[in-house]
Amino acid sequence: MFDCGEGTQRRMVEAHVGFRRSMKIFISHLHGDHLLGLPGLLQTMTLLQREKELEIYGPIGILEFIKAFSSVLGSPGFPLKIYEIKSHGVINDGEEYQVKAVEADHMLPSYSYLLEEKPTPGKFYPEKALELGVPKGPLWRKLQYKQDITLDDGTIVNSENIVGPQRSGIKIAYSGDTKPTIAFIEAACSSNLMIHEATFDNSFKERADENYHSTAEQAAQVAKQANVNELILTHISSRYPDVSQLLIEAKEVFENTIIAEDLMIIEITKEGITVIPQDN
Amino acid sequence: MFDCGEGTQRRMVEAHVGFRRSMKIFISHLHGDHLLGLPGLLQTMTLLQREKELEIYGPIGILEFIKAFSSVLGSPGFPLKIYEIKSHGVINDGEEYQVKAVEADHMLPSYSYLLEEKPTPGKFYPEKALELGVPKGPLWRKLQYKQDITLDDGTIVNSENIVGPQRSGIKIAYSGDTKPTIAFIEAACSSNLMIHEATFDNSFKERADENYHSTAEQAAQVAKQANVNELILTHISSRYPDVSQLLIEAKEVFENTIIAEDLMIIEITKEGITVIPQDN
Repeated sequence: MFDCGEGTQRRMVEAHVGFRRSMKIFISHLHGDHLLGLPGLLQTMTLLQREKELEIYGPIGILEFIKAFSSVLGSPGFPLKIYEIKSHGVINDGEEYQVKAVEADHMLPSYSYLLEEKPTPGKFYPEKALELGVPKGPLWRKLQYKQDITLDDGTIVNSENIVGPQRSGIKIAYSGDTKPTIAFIEAACSSNLMIHEATFDNSFKERADENYHSTAEQAAQVAKQANVNELILTHISSRYPDVSQLLIEAKEVFENTIIAEDLMIIEITKEGITVIPQDN
Repeated sequence: MFDCGEGTQRRMVEAHVGFRRSMKIFISHLHGDHLLGLPGLLQTMTLLQREKELEIYGPIGILEFIKAFSSVLGSPGFPLKIYEIKSHGVINDGEEYQVKAVEADHMLPSYSYLLEEKPTPGKFYPEKALELGVPKGPLWRKLQYKQDITLDDGTIVNSENIVGPQRSGIKIAYSGDTKPTIAFIEAACSSNLMIHEATFDNSFKERADENYHSTAEQAAQVAKQANVNELILTHISSRYPDVSQLLIEAKEVFENTIIAEDLMIIEITKEGITVIPQDN
């Protein structure tokens, strides 16, 4: 989860995202609209008897914030690990993915985040394995994970003869609140999806600059320069009841742009993103 | 405002309740679902440049809670007065209404609240004033506010000849989270409206007792004993996707019962309450 504004727990219920699932939370910065869903979320997790550990990452101060409300409301009833990010780099490295932080350019210490799936093993061809005399079983797994093996009769079987090339994972770039930055463009290079804030339209460019935010056009320029596949605009000011102007502005620079909506579900593949239609 | 759960500011926008209006906030107790809307609400008021003072009342600890999140998120940009309630009684006495607190019986220090409108002047009969030779002007106001007056010719005019009897104000009783209590029944006597928690149905009576909550039937008994006009049940456990069972249970004891819904608007008069239909 990237950022946790007020009401997140309610949205989780609506989106059927369970409170006991494995997850990590990454907070971009300590402004209320990115943060104030945490106290209620942790309380609900406790109430629903979550047992799994939860990790929360954020700028310096996140620990004090969580301690502050816990001292009044009580501490979470499950293991909670809080990591304060001190500089850019890989902040979480797991089996399936890693997360990198990049300094953003906002009013206070802020980070953009990159979620990068680990490469997955290449496609395994069982018929080729059988042809070369490798029986179904643990040896297949070794081959899939790029180990060459030796059969009982001394025959060496090379992984690369049975398994296709490794497949790279999906990469997602999340800006948080920020002015356009070179660091984020570089870190987000060739992402499958960029989620970028677009607080203002271009007529408020000066105001965006003063408030350390981006316009829709600037977000599109960042996406274009980072050579990403798709761009989703979010964090749009409530001054825009109709967001079409921002979409037009962005699409002039970067065609593959959509605007985020509450409860939107998207499928992300190498080929692009697909918005999954919702019943309602 | 009585209690301020997570997401209150969003509901205020939906209900067209402005962030700069005169208001006071009364928190029943320091559990997240009654409290966690405050940080975001105060932030949004600051963002929208509220200037009017805001008063917040609650049990001991409310001050520490507001200080705790303000130290991370910044202090409100408008005058904020926080009152910690130490015992029952009148906690706010204004021109138009007063608010009383009554100790509730919950897991931690908790209060029920009574909102009582001040009596309003009786109906003024201008034709009677003119008949008795009182010219339109400041003397009329004196008469309306129960002062007798003397005209230039020495005639004394008694207020009671021109103004009907004083009209009593509306009285609303709000339980907060609590087991049924005698103190609340007494304080809520003859309210025009009682808003009472009904966390459980009667089959969970033991559990309600253990958790310092009420069942729908108990809430109805409280309403009946307090001889109120109308009862609204709220704070119903999420275990009830269908609340009709609770309504049936309550109505068997106290007929004038309805169940609260998000964004419900009701008009309260001496004659009863009316749910105002909403456009959607």
